[in-house]
Amino acid sequence: MAKNDVKVLGAWPSPYVMRPRIALNIKSVNYEFLEEKFDSKSELLLQSNPVHKKVPVLIHDDKPICESMIIVEYIDEVWTSGPSILPSDPYDRAIHRFWAAYVDEKWFAAMKGLRSAQGEERKAFLDRVIEGLALLEEAFGKCSKGKAFFGGDRIGLLDIAFGSFLAWLKVTEKVNGVKLLDEAKTPGLVKWAERFCADAAVKSVMPETEKLLEFSKFLAAKMKGAPPPKN
Amino acid sequence: MAKNDVKVLGAWPSPYVMRPRIALNIKSVNYEFLEEKFDSKSELLLQSNPVHKKVPVLIHDDKPICESMIIVEYIDEVWTSGPSILPSDPYDRAIHRFWAAYVDEKWFAAMKGLRSAQGEERKAFLDRVIEGLALLEEAFGKCSKGKAFFGGDRIGLLDIAFGSFLAWLKVTEKVNGVKLLDEAKTPGLVKWAERFCADAAVKSVMPETEKLLEFSKFLAAKMKGAPPPKN
Repeated sequence: MAKNDVKVLGAWPSPYVMRPRIALNIKSVNYEFLEEKFDSKSELLLQSNPVHKKVPVLIHDDKPICESMIIVEYIDEVWTSGPSILPSDPYDRAIHRFWAAYVDEKWFAAMKGLRSAQGEERKAFLDRVIEGLALLEEAFGKCSKGKAFFGGDRIGLLDIAFGSFLAWLKVTEKVNGVKLLDEAKTPGLVKWAERFCADAAVKSVMPETEKLLEFSKFLAAKMKGAPPPKN
Repeated sequence: MAKNDVKVLGAWPSPYVMRPRIALNIKSVNYEFLEEKFDSKSELLLQSNPVHKKVPVLIHDDKPICESMIIVEYIDEVWTSGPSILPSDPYDRAIHRFWAAYVDEKWFAAMKGLRSAQGEERKAFLDRVIEGLALLEEAFGKCSKGKAFFGGDRIGLLDIAFGSFLAWLKVTEKVNGVKLLDEAKTPGLVKWAERFCADAAVKSVMPETEKLLEFSKFLAAKMKGAPPPKN
């Protein structure tokens, strides 16, 4: 068995799948990307993540690790010779973990809610997305301390957690005809998003907005029960 | 400002609040427990956790840390001279974190669902709780490797995450007239639960089942709109 045999089971539109890929890129670890099909699950995925049956899964020397942020912490702990992803100070680590959980459980949950909501409910979700961005703008000021990223001079845990949603944020803006990241209200995040998307560790795994927009239309049609497109 | 001035904002019936308290007990750290009232939130809580406005909050030298499992990891990282709470091996850490997240997001979510569900829905929740315990029995076998706790010879991260729900599990058994932890199906967990509840770090913060049962009745009445009891 090869040492450092690294595979990622994933799917290109998934923000969660981007996370281990960015972390591995930061650590300069070569890995094989095994793309799961949208409408069926591979035997390897079912074996590797029998509880949730979801991507991403990192398979490191035949051992599976599941759940995107747990994988990112694992990568940081195993490949210690590369740049650190978590801050070194325990308080800063707690703050990164807090906002990473907030992004998943509250902020992105609201953005997902927008997909199918109408009327008053839609407005409530949109307000929550916007309020969340205001909180994250404030958190950016505190975490970055005037530097480029939440993690300071380089991409850290919270950059990965939040940044992995940027392509979906752009799609949400297009679909809903709104500007969510905005020079007036979230100037720090606007600049941060540009830097994050241009980073060498991110560029190759960030989906193109137009391609993701097409996928989101397919997803919306599927949720309404329409048959999937032929290719 | 005193070094190692440690406060926990909490409420006695909350399983989440038990977690930092157990972790601090393991590390032999003295702390002040500030009990929040059930029907109002203190100014200190609102200031310390403005995003979620929820207990527990750990306040360490005036700095607030929120979210129970993030607090437990913080405690482990700050008070390094005490026994370790997280396993030392990165893969084992990932496995502990995986099951800790499972317990919160899937298993306890199903147990909470039982509270108000009826008929078919209630049966579905009950099945999920029982299936979850079967998975956790299997995880116990793998994590403990024949030792007393998920963490091996002593209480670790996953023991704290799951064990903090044991009093609520007993209440759920009583309210629903079912046996959930059971010698035939979950023999490992039955013994583990006894050891966990008897541990010196746990005993003083684990609610008595009868007292918690009373509280759960009060909670159920409140959810139905009944006025709270006078004391």
